[in-house]
Amino acid sequence: MLKIAIYGLGTVGQGVIKILRTMDLEVEIAAVFDRSRQKKQAILQGIFATDNVETVLKRDDIDLHIELLGGIELPLYIVRSAIDKGKNVITANKALLAEHGYTLFNLASRTNSKIGFEASIAGAIPVIRNLETVFRGQKITRLEGILNGTTNYILTRMRQESKPYTEILSDAQNLGLAEADPTLDVSGMDATHKLAILSSLILNEWIDYRRIQTRGIEQIELNDILYAQKMGYRIRLVGQCEVRDGLKHVILEPMMISSRHFLWDIEMENNAVSLETEFAGPHLFVGKGAGQNPTAWSVISDIQRQLTPNLPNFAEKPWQYGIPDDAGNIQSPFYVRALVKDEPGVLAKIAGIFARHKISIATVHQDNPHNASQSDGKTADLIIVTHTAKRSELLKSVEEITSLDEVSAPPVFISVIEPEN
Amino acid sequence: MLKIAIYGLGTVGQGVIKILRTMDLEVEIAAVFDRSRQKKQAILQGIFATDNVETVLKRDDIDLHIELLGGIELPLYIVRSAIDKGKNVITANKALLAEHGYTLFNLASRTNSKIGFEASIAGAIPVIRNLETVFRGQKITRLEGILNGTTNYILTRMRQESKPYTEILSDAQNLGLAEADPTLDVSGMDATHKLAILSSLILNEWIDYRRIQTRGIEQIELNDILYAQKMGYRIRLVGQCEVRDGLKHVILEPMMISSRHFLWDIEMENNAVSLETEFAGPHLFVGKGAGQNPTAWSVISDIQRQLTPNLPNFAEKPWQYGIPDDAGNIQSPFYVRALVKDEPGVLAKIAGIFARHKISIATVHQDNPHNASQSDGKTADLIIVTHTAKRSELLKSVEEITSLDEVSAPPVFISVIEPEN
Repeated sequence: MLKIAIYGLGTVGQGVIKILRTMDLEVEIAAVFDRSRQKKQAILQGIFATDNVETVLKRDDIDLHIELLGGIELPLYIVRSAIDKGKNVITANKALLAEHGYTLFNLASRTNSKIGFEASIAGAIPVIRNLETVFRGQKITRLEGILNGTTNYILTRMRQESKPYTEILSDAQNLGLAEADPTLDVSGMDATHKLAILSSLILNEWIDYRRIQTRGIEQIELNDILYAQKMGYRIRLVGQCEVRDGLKHVILEPMMISSRHFLWDIEMENNAVSLETEFAGPHLFVGKGAGQNPTAWSVISDIQRQLTPNLPNFAEKPWQYGIPDDAGNIQSPFYVRALVKDEPGVLAKIAGIFARHKISIATVHQDNPHNASQSDGKTADLIIVTHTAKRSELLKSVEEITSLDEVSAPPVFISVIEPEN
Repeated sequence: MLKIAIYGLGTVGQGVIKILRTMDLEVEIAAVFDRSRQKKQAILQGIFATDNVETVLKRDDIDLHIELLGGIELPLYIVRSAIDKGKNVITANKALLAEHGYTLFNLASRTNSKIGFEASIAGAIPVIRNLETVFRGQKITRLEGILNGTTNYILTRMRQESKPYTEILSDAQNLGLAEADPTLDVSGMDATHKLAILSSLILNEWIDYRRIQTRGIEQIELNDILYAQKMGYRIRLVGQCEVRDGLKHVILEPMMISSRHFLWDIEMENNAVSLETEFAGPHLFVGKGAGQNPTAWSVISDIQRQLTPNLPNFAEKPWQYGIPDDAGNIQSPFYVRALVKDEPGVLAKIAGIFARHKISIATVHQDNPHNASQSDGKTADLIIVTHTAKRSELLKSVEEITSLDEVSAPPVFISVIEPEN
């Protein structure tokens, strides 16, 4: 009989208890820590509950400590204390792992503890388990993930309904699909936390999330979404980790996804992880990125795992820090849109700038901005898609284009993602 | 050190050896059985090889027997002999499992053998492993799979290039993507073998593939593919297993996939498995359905598994036969196309037939057949999409429509698949 303790009885914690009660596992919920346990007596029936975290932590009979709180400080204390004692832990807390995973994993490798964290990344998608077992022993050469449901939902609806960011965001907030303060999601930081963890597993070196080049979706204009659609692309917030020519590229930002790419069709609040593997070809995993039962199931799946000893676990070996290479080295085609004065010579100047940076242009077209306030007949959107270019050269070009008199605002640039084959 | 024997050194077998040589596993290839081993001395360097199957089978030091032959008789003998001795086996042979899985799994549950069969279904996609571990303990309420790469490739190219079945099939044969005798693939039988196995795992009862309602793609006309596209659907050969209202529905045939469904975007020779789960929501797994390394990796993944004892395995409990319920009970919307005389009253008659069978019509339109030989101005395609209807009633309606004087051939009918939510 596996004795578990659950810390935090929010949506996911309650889901875990409900599902465990429908199952016939050799698992006993020995203790629950929750500060508002008084209000949750129905679900807690027959389970020991306390608001004193020490009461639970000090019990030697508990084999597995499951941290489902929010925040960082208390979760860190709980997880570290449990690992210190050589106990196994499960956490759904990606911010905790992004901030302190390096320390926790190394501690666990010394005390022989296992860390289950399936629920911390991409909700219900069993990506950690598959990386830890099925794909073990082969290189993952490229990962691309839609790791945040809220931003994918917003981008999907902007395209489907031709509505601007602020309008869809506020609707998503009303529907409970975006937080009142949406910063963590729309800035990309939540997805970057998850990308940092996934990249660490793939690169086999711990990646500090602060080192990951990150842009959110706040600056995405409907304009660009509609142009993308016209060209057969969709804009998604994508986390990418790739090893190419010996360089480690880790980046999270809005990208233009080709219709040939697995991520093209991942709509609304779904999450997805696409892998290129050394031997097993390309893979795609799709599932719910959030939600009570889907996330709770990832916890249950980690609990079931503890019932099978000797399974490989990412916490079993010591970790070293790794540093992503300069994102300026990343190569891809780019979409660039500049709001320009509609007069002769502008294209020549811009094309000249790209030429000086050895960036070759695949397509150019000019259009009236969808944004009515800019549609004054005197300015036009100049839309350029480049062939594969080095990001640092692209950034320099964009800077020079910005300084042109005929250009009224810094151009938008978004990398274009095609599948490997 | 795990000692393994490999039977059959074709594409996959050679892939397994090549990959194993790049890895640092506690695995020794103790013997290879292959009848043309003389021609394969390069890959066999340092490995004991024989064309005498008994020499390998009788060796007690071999822990794991890996069957990668074609056909049924010899594979059955090898797998059964190994299981009889309480040894573990891996097989990539779906025909073997579809024909004899019931016997083999029950034998294995008695002798405590494990059967690894990841490579037998959907190539590189780790669907067996995930069903066996991650999803264990929750009901899978619905599975839909694209389980045959050749047919998905043919259907994709027919749509993309607006070319008829025979032309794309012969091109696929020239490219090595379809067999000289393509019957097993295009009749749906290969996919039905795999669906039988997947359905067994999900329903927890052994499903005989002969009981599965099966239609292949030989009858699919370009006409229907183009009409489907116009309506926002794609025709794919889909295996479906669903438990609904207590009935077990298992069916494999061409279906019209809604653009909202995960399988809509699975193109060319990719395979995919879409699951609806009790707790973890919808899931999609996509990967290569064939190919040397992708399939070999599924074998490697099963080998690695053997290095971890105590893992759950589908062969660990005795199996009972289950019988799918009458496919006539399956409900879905249907696409029906009839080639009719272009004269007044035909629609009234056909609508009357549907009405008598209590099938309500969602959309009707009439079009000129894309097939030039039928485009004589006197006949037209009448295209009807029904609301959800019982398949048995739909079949009766189709039969009655066939008997109308104004209808020149049995109408085409294809069920329409929408996602759960």
